[in-house]
Amino acid sequence: MTGGDGTALDGLLAGAPDFEPGQVWLVGAGPGDPSLLTLAAVSALGQADVVVYDALVDPRILDLARPEAERLFAGKRGGKPSHNQADISATLVDLARKGRRVLRLKGGDPFVFGRGGEECAALGAAGIPIRIIPGITSGLSGLTAAGIPATLRGVNQAIFLATGHGAGQTGAADAIDWRRVAGLGQPIVLYMAMKMMPLIRAELRAGGLPGTTPCAAIVSATTADQRVVFSQVDRLVEDMEAAGLEPPAVIAIGEIVRHRSVLDGAVRLAVGSERPAAE
Amino acid sequence: MTGGDGTALDGLLAGAPDFEPGQVWLVGAGPGDPSLLTLAAVSALGQADVVVYDALVDPRILDLARPEAERLFAGKRGGKPSHNQADISATLVDLARKGRRVLRLKGGDPFVFGRGGEECAALGAAGIPIRIIPGITSGLSGLTAAGIPATLRGVNQAIFLATGHGAGQTGAADAIDWRRVAGLGQPIVLYMAMKMMPLIRAELRAGGLPGTTPCAAIVSATTADQRVVFSQVDRLVEDMEAAGLEPPAVIAIGEIVRHRSVLDGAVRLAVGSERPAAE
Repeated sequence: MTGGDGTALDGLLAGAPDFEPGQVWLVGAGPGDPSLLTLAAVSALGQADVVVYDALVDPRILDLARPEAERLFAGKRGGKPSHNQADISATLVDLARKGRRVLRLKGGDPFVFGRGGEECAALGAAGIPIRIIPGITSGLSGLTAAGIPATLRGVNQAIFLATGHGAGQTGAADAIDWRRVAGLGQPIVLYMAMKMMPLIRAELRAGGLPGTTPCAAIVSATTADQRVVFSQVDRLVEDMEAAGLEPPAVIAIGEIVRHRSVLDGAVRLAVGSERPAAE
Repeated sequence: MTGGDGTALDGLLAGAPDFEPGQVWLVGAGPGDPSLLTLAAVSALGQADVVVYDALVDPRILDLARPEAERLFAGKRGGKPSHNQADISATLVDLARKGRRVLRLKGGDPFVFGRGGEECAALGAAGIPIRIIPGITSGLSGLTAAGIPATLRGVNQAIFLATGHGAGQTGAADAIDWRRVAGLGQPIVLYMAMKMMPLIRAELRAGGLPGTTPCAAIVSATTADQRVVFSQVDRLVEDMEAAGLEPPAVIAIGEIVRHRSVLDGAVRLAVGSERPAAE
């Protein structure tokens, strides 16, 4: 690796547990740029017998697994329906019961809208030992990559992270009351909300959120393919369409977006490409 | 490093920008366990001339800097008042103007209640070039470390991250309306809220949050010193006191805390000590 003291680096992982046969490790791959992977994730990849990975995981991250390790794709690709969650969980249980070291690699963080909890429940019910390595969640780092400070004194003391996935359901116990959210006056960061954005927008507007509230949509955050569209609430859907953005996107809504001037000009992520953070 | 393919690892950082003299890089150190540091952060530490670091940064992380690199402490220690934010920003500007490679190392993520935005504003005003390396935020990984899934289908579709720091102020433009937050029905994760918890609790209760809502306080998350207290809203302050918890703590409030059974028994973080994730 560039820089760093090899001895000190080894010391960091000296106390880490070994990846034992028959275990499943749930590992966050971070937002996109491979250099945002954690040391613990790199170490785990070097020990796994099989890597079960989602879409949007950079091939350079999979290259960190041993050459003889099996790679199993478990994501959505080219618009085809995703693998059934029950099937994925059953696969993980099956591989672990065969005595393999199973690394379940998920984009971002496994527990932030990543369905890691469901996989843990299935593995726990089957008596499979689990370990977890958190990752950098794409929502928060997506804002940074777009030059938007997630929090700033005098602007916000909170941030509301939400998935747009269930916005069409009515009466669900876990449903989000978007009209109430509109009244909080704190920024909103949406995961997987492009498709449901017209509905979410209508609810936020009905809850009193001004149509001129600034917002941003960030696609492929932190990677060389990153694209950012800055807009305002009442034009976001149209501006995303006009720009030809494809899901998944991170969408930020709130005054904090206006404060990207704080990071303007000088800021670049110290990772990946030389593309400016905001375009 | 344990495991990993050295060549593939070098490749990940091949496209990363060099740390140029006169630049300031804001780097997230993650929640505590040094193995949750990113590869980009390790690389930056190996190039810096001076590291300006906060409290709660593990000495093993500082050891990744070159032996000849200067280490400057800029945090709060032993109850003494913290360094003035304006002084820290002025120090960063001064060091950069002297042509040093300045690494500003902050716990968690620099922009999630980390005052990174303020430092960027000061640096930008002075014309200092900045780069940013995100980190894993302690709030979300603190939940994982306590065995609590941050999100779970059927339980929550959102999570509200907030600082308790400003809870005593009235009329501030960025103030949180805790009564409204109580009505969201989505979990709340609080940073730096131990001191203000009696006030926040009173407001949440006034907003209709049941006193029996499960909650957890997590101190030194992901480290060998981690402590977790499980409680409920109307007893949390007393239970934290009885357990002798010292700030800073991450506090989680909501039904999601009850679902730690999902991660129960089998789950350990794959990092740091062998201490169980929940106690």
